[in-house]
Amino acid sequence: MTRVRIDLNISLDGFASGAPTSENPMGEDWERLTAAYVATRTFRERVFGDTSGAGSTGIDDSYAAAYFEGVGAEIMGAGMFGFHSFPDDPDWQGWWGDEPPFGIPVYVLTHTAPRPPMPMQGGTTFHFRSTAITDVLAEAIDSAGTLDVRVGGGVGTAREFLRAGLVDDLHVAIAPILLGRGGRLWEDLRGLDLTHQVRTEVAESGTTHVTFTR
Amino acid sequence: MTRVRIDLNISLDGFASGAPTSENPMGEDWERLTAAYVATRTFRERVFGDTSGAGSTGIDDSYAAAYFEGVGAEIMGAGMFGFHSFPDDPDWQGWWGDEPPFGIPVYVLTHTAPRPPMPMQGGTTFHFRSTAITDVLAEAIDSAGTLDVRVGGGVGTAREFLRAGLVDDLHVAIAPILLGRGGRLWEDLRGLDLTHQVRTEVAESGTTHVTFTR
Repeated sequence: MTRVRIDLNISLDGFASGAPTSENPMGEDWERLTAAYVATRTFRERVFGDTSGAGSTGIDDSYAAAYFEGVGAEIMGAGMFGFHSFPDDPDWQGWWGDEPPFGIPVYVLTHTAPRPPMPMQGGTTFHFRSTAITDVLAEAIDSAGTLDVRVGGGVGTAREFLRAGLVDDLHVAIAPILLGRGGRLWEDLRGLDLTHQVRTEVAESGTTHVTFTR
Repeated sequence: MTRVRIDLNISLDGFASGAPTSENPMGEDWERLTAAYVATRTFRERVFGDTSGAGSTGIDDSYAAAYFEGVGAEIMGAGMFGFHSFPDDPDWQGWWGDEPPFGIPVYVLTHTAPRPPMPMQGGTTFHFRSTAITDVLAEAIDSAGTLDVRVGGGVGTAREFLRAGLVDDLHVAIAPILLGRGGRLWEDLRGLDLTHQVRTEVAESGTTHVTFTR
């Protein structure tokens, strides 16, 4: 049965992104937030196409492998797609390039006039929706078939789904760093530990993996 | 050589206290924040006087034992002493009772007119200081001799010492709960991981212990 999943990299002080700019939409702290994840064998293989077997193979890698398994549709906010970066350019097609790494239907939440679907190389099709998140989720679940739906981000979108009680599995990889700025995950999420089971383990890299499961 | 230490119990979303009231100065979430700590054999013995050997004996207990070792003077904020709770009662002597659990000199930071020293049963003497935190710290270090100085809290006082670069050892015990309110530890502490070494481990209780050491 389809589950609704969120995976985020955050800092110890709870920031999921750092000070984004138009040159660097993920923010300049992104590399430090994701260093342990990017160093895994799975990430190197799946994202960089590195089949040499290089990369870390411990606890971080087991979470990375789980990340890439079983997702049939993705939902993302307008900022993660890239709408906010060049708002005056009607030809701007977002940050994800000609061949986005999803390979599945991606539902982009937007408050601007909907665009027609945008099929890309590699199996990704972007769908733009300005309806309620519950409606978008129902559509994503439908198109995911037996697979899961991931709410990919950004952090504001993730929090919106979490607060609405729509998320079955949240995995946060907490880097042992303090950023002091950026988008906070932990706002108004009091009690998520009461509706979900919480499990924590520390990877060899010092990253703490916390999962909330219901 | 004297080290300056802070130990705090915080939630996963970074709150070190929850919604304090005049009836419950620690806030109603305090019990959940400190449950794993209070359950340790060391805490039961040292605070409750329970010498039966009951209580947890794993990772949480090893941090609890370290907590009680080697502190020669303590610094606390006015709120932790209790000044803010009954500001109009000149006879109010704070939350700590006739025999406070410190047994050492305790320096209380206050912006109100200094009181004379207040010696209590059990070896605690409260000293009230309205000078700069660096001056109070120098005095506390002096009176600690070869032992350490603890900045006991509250969280605002802890953050003030951390931001000023005055803390050698920070230990946070992170309970796997989300409170969504209270006093935040992680404000404006960007880069503490660059001046200190960070170590993380998860206790049997699900509490994550993170230490910053320089």
